[in-house]
Amino acid sequence: MAHNPLAKPVPPPAATPARFLDLVADKLVATDEVFRRHLESDVPFIQKAGVYLADGGGKRVRPALLLLAARLLGHDSEEEVTYAAVVELIHTATLIHDDIIDHAALRRGRTTLNHLWGNNLTVLLGDWLYTTAMQMALSHGHLDVVQRLCTATRRMTEGELLAYQRLGAVDLTVDEYFHIIDRKTAHLFAAACSIPSLIPPQRNEAGQVLHRYGQALGTCFQLVDDLLDFTAREAELGKPVLSDLKEGKFTLPLILLLPRVGAERRRLVEMVLEDRSFARVAPEEILELVQAEGTLEEVAGMAEGYAAQAKQELEFFPPSDARDALELTPDFVLHRRS
Amino acid sequence: MAHNPLAKPVPPPAATPARFLDLVADKLVATDEVFRRHLESDVPFIQKAGVYLADGGGKRVRPALLLLAARLLGHDSEEEVTYAAVVELIHTATLIHDDIIDHAALRRGRTTLNHLWGNNLTVLLGDWLYTTAMQMALSHGHLDVVQRLCTATRRMTEGELLAYQRLGAVDLTVDEYFHIIDRKTAHLFAAACSIPSLIPPQRNEAGQVLHRYGQALGTCFQLVDDLLDFTAREAELGKPVLSDLKEGKFTLPLILLLPRVGAERRRLVEMVLEDRSFARVAPEEILELVQAEGTLEEVAGMAEGYAAQAKQELEFFPPSDARDALELTPDFVLHRRS
Repeated sequence: MAHNPLAKPVPPPAATPARFLDLVADKLVATDEVFRRHLESDVPFIQKAGVYLADGGGKRVRPALLLLAARLLGHDSEEEVTYAAVVELIHTATLIHDDIIDHAALRRGRTTLNHLWGNNLTVLLGDWLYTTAMQMALSHGHLDVVQRLCTATRRMTEGELLAYQRLGAVDLTVDEYFHIIDRKTAHLFAAACSIPSLIPPQRNEAGQVLHRYGQALGTCFQLVDDLLDFTAREAELGKPVLSDLKEGKFTLPLILLLPRVGAERRRLVEMVLEDRSFARVAPEEILELVQAEGTLEEVAGMAEGYAAQAKQELEFFPPSDARDALELTPDFVLHRRS
Repeated sequence: MAHNPLAKPVPPPAATPARFLDLVADKLVATDEVFRRHLESDVPFIQKAGVYLADGGGKRVRPALLLLAARLLGHDSEEEVTYAAVVELIHTATLIHDDIIDHAALRRGRTTLNHLWGNNLTVLLGDWLYTTAMQMALSHGHLDVVQRLCTATRRMTEGELLAYQRLGAVDLTVDEYFHIIDRKTAHLFAAACSIPSLIPPQRNEAGQVLHRYGQALGTCFQLVDDLLDFTAREAELGKPVLSDLKEGKFTLPLILLLPRVGAERRRLVEMVLEDRSFARVAPEEILELVQAEGTLEEVAGMAEGYAAQAKQELEFFPPSDARDALELTPDFVLHRRS
């Protein structure tokens, strides 16, 4: 279980996760305050659930990226703090609707809202969070920003729908997988990174670069997140290992593996998907399988490729502390899951 | 069952439902086209569900009100058609999330999306519809309009949350009931009616009048909608009669009734709420109860009061065909449920 495919191939990180956050530490505190303030409500349930969500942590990856991109472009105002809170709010709304769909009981080591209060209240709370996020985004009057957030949210929902419809499908292709994670994850990363370019004075070209940067980094993030389901310990994950597979989510290490192994070993994976449990197959059998075929290392290599692509985009900008901090390697995900 | 409390007290209507729609018939056709076009998607499930929703009818009360208010203010552009489609889209998203919560199997005489495709896809589709609606609303660049739509949507969700938390509660007060329907229904009506005043040239005072008009009319609409659960036939409702009570929804005719009857008759209502079924009490027993106490007529009288209040607001405007058409009486709901 302690096997970590990222441990060897990754060179000493250019930006440690700590440094990644240090530069915008004050703004992240301000973001948390804005986040918390906007979850206050005269509706008792919203108030209660809001406090639970605000206390729940989450590693604020998307807000940090947005704030660093703002710094990279020389912004220093309240606007980026609002938008940082908005992307975290949208992300939170997605997570709680996802947890309904996955019947998840744990998220970040805490009981999910759907398990605490049932699906019905959680559906409505998610709707309220999405709408609250849009209303906050409108407050500074930059239509382009709201438009970009809407587009990213739509794409995310489409990614979730596509993923849900292919849940449990053993014939999911590599192309389909990337199409899904592009919509499900990379778009909101790209929006978070490019939104500061839409704050006047608009920076169109820089915005496109940051959009591509975010898309590559978001893809890297999702690949590593999928890897962690195989390699991390339950205490690190805040949920059981191999949860993805148990929920029918067929991620890249297994997609790459299946065509390469015989029917007998393929059958192991199929049985978990069919049962949605480890009743007939032990988690260790699946882990041994991917370790033997080396697909975890392969996916780790791809994640590094996306991180390198993201880093290359940054060369558009002159050197700065913000640019250094944005030069992330896949291991940042290991420390900063959200 | 054919008893209709609105049949006697209501005078010959000033505006027949037909007339209400005639004036904006062309624009309603255009609205339907915009609605349908924006439900198109490269995600197969969205495409399929979108066609199902677009074909499902719905009486387009909110779009018609928006279009008539636009005509009242002298607008004639594509903008009001977009916004009319947007309010219908928001309303549709609310309905499909509501149907999940109510475990509803029928809506407008057709199988609900949650029963056709399950709760999970329906949660995500609702999210997609909300976001699509916001994106459409942004397209004309009037921030105030999007802001108003966001506020109305938030209020609606809050109303739904409050209602859900008090589901099955026999001690719901008249004040609580009105507080809930104000958020759940009246706000979107008010937004629909006042949005045309935000299209340049802005008309602040007229906007406030139309907002109050919509709020009163929305309240009237909800009261009559709640009455119909007692008085309409299943074929008219598109769902079984007394569905509200069976779902634990305690509406005004019963809220007014309970304090006036003895423990034995009160027990009848409580048993339906406890069982969430008519296993121990026949629907006829409940209907006889409200008929004997006259609370249906009482609620019908209140609905007329709200309609009169709405009509009075319209006196702010000089006489016109649009003003005539907006002078609705409660019976418009009988013909135009949505």
